[in-house]
Amino acid sequence: MQRKSFGRMACPIARSLERVGEWWSILILRDALHGLTRFDEFQQSLGIAPNMLARRLTALVEAGLLERRRYSERPPRDEYVLTARGRDFRPVLATLLAWGNKHFAPEGASVLLVDTKTGAAVDPILVDPATGRSIEEPDYAFAAGPAAGERTRRRYASSGPRAGSAGAERIPRKSTAR
Amino acid sequence: MQRKSFGRMACPIARSLERVGEWWSILILRDALHGLTRFDEFQQSLGIAPNMLARRLTALVEAGLLERRRYSERPPRDEYVLTARGRDFRPVLATLLAWGNKHFAPEGASVLLVDTKTGAAVDPILVDPATGRSIEEPDYAFAAGPAAGERTRRRYASSGPRAGSAGAERIPRKSTAR
Repeated sequence: MQRKSFGRMACPIARSLERVGEWWSILILRDALHGLTRFDEFQQSLGIAPNMLARRLTALVEAGLLERRRYSERPPRDEYVLTARGRDFRPVLATLLAWGNKHFAPEGASVLLVDTKTGAAVDPILVDPATGRSIEEPDYAFAAGPAAGERTRRRYASSGPRAGSAGAERIPRKSTAR
Repeated sequence: MQRKSFGRMACPIARSLERVGEWWSILILRDALHGLTRFDEFQQSLGIAPNMLARRLTALVEAGLLERRRYSERPPRDEYVLTARGRDFRPVLATLLAWGNKHFAPEGASVLLVDTKTGAAVDPILVDPATGRSIEEPDYAFAAGPAAGERTRRRYASSGPRAGSAGAERIPRKSTAR
């Protein structure tokens, strides 16, 4: 399927999606964070066609999320190891996990984030490390940054009933029924 | 392109991707969280083909992330409003934003999360609300939950050099060079 390249968009979310915005890529990263490194391990975990897996692994190597390392010369075999950039994807997966557990697990959670010291399930929240407050509080908003172009500035400066002041547009608050 | 359905997978990450695992869907949610509701607004923001936009909006309505509301009878016009489930996607976008800014914005950030009271840029961290500690600390791991099937249990109980004990597999820690 032909698709537009998001890499040229200024939005950091769009640029991230350019690298991982594909189901398989995200599940490969999930498994890599889980410790898998070898082609056969990924294939067994995902039930993915070999040619598709090879393509996605190569794309993740090219995007700098995985590093290819030869672990056997005869036969030639590579393994795929997370880079720092790939490991940094973990919080995205943890928030996806929390969202999936909340909304798409009517039978209960099949995977949890746990505190291994206590065994307690953790429903993580995103906080501002400077204040310790949840970024779901209404003071926190997305805003144009220093490298924003005209279009991005206009988008985040747009006023309206849902917009905040000072160039930062208010984001609707998360449901309090959590 | 034919693809496997992830909705039948037990993993909550896979199930989440079944609903939003598409570049356009995630960017539509980004814009919806930013306050856009109308077809023309999404189209202008995204530069997406109308038939593709209509398809993605319908999929997001069917997945319960957006609600379709008629705002004009003549001509018939609908707007698309976030549901509680859709608003709950915001932390996923915030972590994608932080990851994109860190790794794919060599010219500086074009979009930031800010504390609108102080104007300070925020690099949010995921914490355990019970302890206030970052989930990047090594005690935190993904583990099989109460609804896990045999396959999921095996995956999270697998031992090896990178595996933790007590059925919870250790996840490599995030780079400390952050």
